[in-house]
Amino acid sequence: MSGISTPRGFGALGINAGIKNDALDMALIYSEVEASIAAVFTTNKIKGAPVKYCMSLLERGETARAIIINSKNANACNGEQGNSDAKRMAEFTAECLRVPDTSVYVCSTGVIGVPLPMDKVERGIKSITREIFECEDCGAIAAKAIMTTDTRPKEFTKTVVIDGKRVKIGAMVKGVGMIEPNMATMLAYITTDANVDRAALQDCIEDVTAKTFNRISVDGDQSCNDSFFIMANGLAGNKELNLQHKDWQIFVDAIHETALYLAKELVRDGEGVTKFVEIVVKGAESNADAGLVARAIGNSLLVKTSWFGNDPNWGRIIDAAGYSGAELVEEKVDIFYGSIECVKGGMVVAGKLAELEAIMRQDEFVITIDLNISDGEYNLYTCDCSYEYVKINAEYTT
Amino acid sequence: MSGISTPRGFGALGINAGIKNDALDMALIYSEVEASIAAVFTTNKIKGAPVKYCMSLLERGETARAIIINSKNANACNGEQGNSDAKRMAEFTAECLRVPDTSVYVCSTGVIGVPLPMDKVERGIKSITREIFECEDCGAIAAKAIMTTDTRPKEFTKTVVIDGKRVKIGAMVKGVGMIEPNMATMLAYITTDANVDRAALQDCIEDVTAKTFNRISVDGDQSCNDSFFIMANGLAGNKELNLQHKDWQIFVDAIHETALYLAKELVRDGEGVTKFVEIVVKGAESNADAGLVARAIGNSLLVKTSWFGNDPNWGRIIDAAGYSGAELVEEKVDIFYGSIECVKGGMVVAGKLAELEAIMRQDEFVITIDLNISDGEYNLYTCDCSYEYVKINAEYTT
Repeated sequence: MSGISTPRGFGALGINAGIKNDALDMALIYSEVEASIAAVFTTNKIKGAPVKYCMSLLERGETARAIIINSKNANACNGEQGNSDAKRMAEFTAECLRVPDTSVYVCSTGVIGVPLPMDKVERGIKSITREIFECEDCGAIAAKAIMTTDTRPKEFTKTVVIDGKRVKIGAMVKGVGMIEPNMATMLAYITTDANVDRAALQDCIEDVTAKTFNRISVDGDQSCNDSFFIMANGLAGNKELNLQHKDWQIFVDAIHETALYLAKELVRDGEGVTKFVEIVVKGAESNADAGLVARAIGNSLLVKTSWFGNDPNWGRIIDAAGYSGAELVEEKVDIFYGSIECVKGGMVVAGKLAELEAIMRQDEFVITIDLNISDGEYNLYTCDCSYEYVKINAEYTT
Repeated sequence: MSGISTPRGFGALGINAGIKNDALDMALIYSEVEASIAAVFTTNKIKGAPVKYCMSLLERGETARAIIINSKNANACNGEQGNSDAKRMAEFTAECLRVPDTSVYVCSTGVIGVPLPMDKVERGIKSITREIFECEDCGAIAAKAIMTTDTRPKEFTKTVVIDGKRVKIGAMVKGVGMIEPNMATMLAYITTDANVDRAALQDCIEDVTAKTFNRISVDGDQSCNDSFFIMANGLAGNKELNLQHKDWQIFVDAIHETALYLAKELVRDGEGVTKFVEIVVKGAESNADAGLVARAIGNSLLVKTSWFGNDPNWGRIIDAAGYSGAELVEEKVDIFYGSIECVKGGMVVAGKLAELEAIMRQDEFVITIDLNISDGEYNLYTCDCSYEYVKINAEYTT
């Protein structure tokens, strides 16, 4: 399967540029024609140089032809050298592809505080910008090249009909898990041959991110290189999509479905993950309050280790809800594991232990917390915390 | 050594009441005369029944004669039954001790959502209220009886001179580590024979808590039973201490020293802890901002696992500072491990790896983050996260 190179006019490839060792470490996404581009980035105040460079391109409203990506080095905390290296990566890629300077975006992921080996990076760019034209539908190789501690490449494709035209969507993501030893967690890319107004595309990506990538938590840390891009090159031939287009919602729903799949895949492939858990909070004073409860539970080490141990430990869940900062009345709280009511009105429902343990032994389950105050809701996709997580994150020595 | 029973007129004891098994599970602190009492409690909205009961006693301004404590059961999330059991524990202890109903406080720690076995609790109270008069200076046994996943009892004593009188302070704490399988983490007690005005004692406990117990973090969770009490019975014969007393600061400093010792001991004895780390944040926009940075670092799983792995991973530290919400300028951030400058102006200081690794291999070290913006400061006492932490918190099955 090839994800990112599926839509018309898109190519993609991965190669080894020798940035650290002989693993794939450089990827390129290329569009034959100018594409609308939209993106969202980490809100961390420490931002990698590529993030800062891409933010400045996007502010100027530039269209896109390509995204050049390297793994094994985040190009973060490298000062002015980092900024000029990020710019050089983008501009040298543009030069090799013979496209405008400002139409190439750049992402890096990997160790921070180590300058990029620019000689190797430039040799890599020379190769990949040539080889990409010799490899049809090689998105799967790109999806491998952006991996860090991911255990498998993560791709997705989808086709929808807009204005009677078949519109293709392709995607790849690399994940959660802080690469050896550092951050640079999430990079996500969607390509589509839909014709989409740029401002509408930015609306779409922000809306979708709030409901997908912003609703996952593996360890509660947030990297300085997180980026999510959508490129739309228009080769499907539909009438330009915008908020007034009759099929706008079809497009947004397809992007949402794509991003949600990728987001869940990130959690499933999180470091040391043995269980995928959806936390649903209902009945909160507000959606924001529901979010506080979901995040307190999803980020609680005590809760996450209890999941790993197959322990239906509702006490840790109600405790985390209690310190979340949300409005809450102990006597009104109901908690469900799957469809089994475990806590009613703040007190345990007796005789359910065997059923609860059966749910805990599943690879995936839903925990619902109903605060029974008002109608605020939020859901979060998260996972357990295992020995393996500690091992992965402790054993690297800088 | 006996801590809590050291000051004049105080007795203490621990026994097995059979609440769960044959381990010590009940403790009593008793003052021969009426004592001023001050306390602070968890801010979790889910509060154990004993916490709610003690809060109501304190609001009425009652003096204290005793505190009855059980481990193995938190008496939390037990509804009306829990409230009446907490009240019964206190009042039955008062009856057995022949002291006023409202002069006995109560604490519970252990599993939540399980009603107390009140028949065993009452038999235990009958025994302990009798045996306490037969055991002189048995504070060490009380310190053992309040333990949960603590690996050792934690006590402290100190003597200061006030008004020319020798004032003794004794203390015990049980710790961080969420008992099998639950919360009920921190219970701390200080006794003193100083004569202290009640309102001044409450000021003192709040001030000291902000600088000690509120500056520790093992796993970022906050229990529903956390409580810290000071009892002062006046038998030292000093003139009543209050904010105007010339020796007030001597007393506050002694209580601060006591609480800081206990707080550090909690971290050192935290679940699976192999390293004790002090995080010092300087140069922040405000003290509150400095606190945000210290807590983001101290609660980051990535940072804590890197400490466990002896990895001087400053990237994870600056990353956590970046998402803490504090004002921060990447180019101004300096980071020190011990006295070794590792990051200067947001960039790595080369050639320090061997020195940094030597610091990481110590059992205790200080990490300083200077934001170089203004003069806001905060320090936090925390620890690493090891396999053992995950093991302790995963292996229990409810």
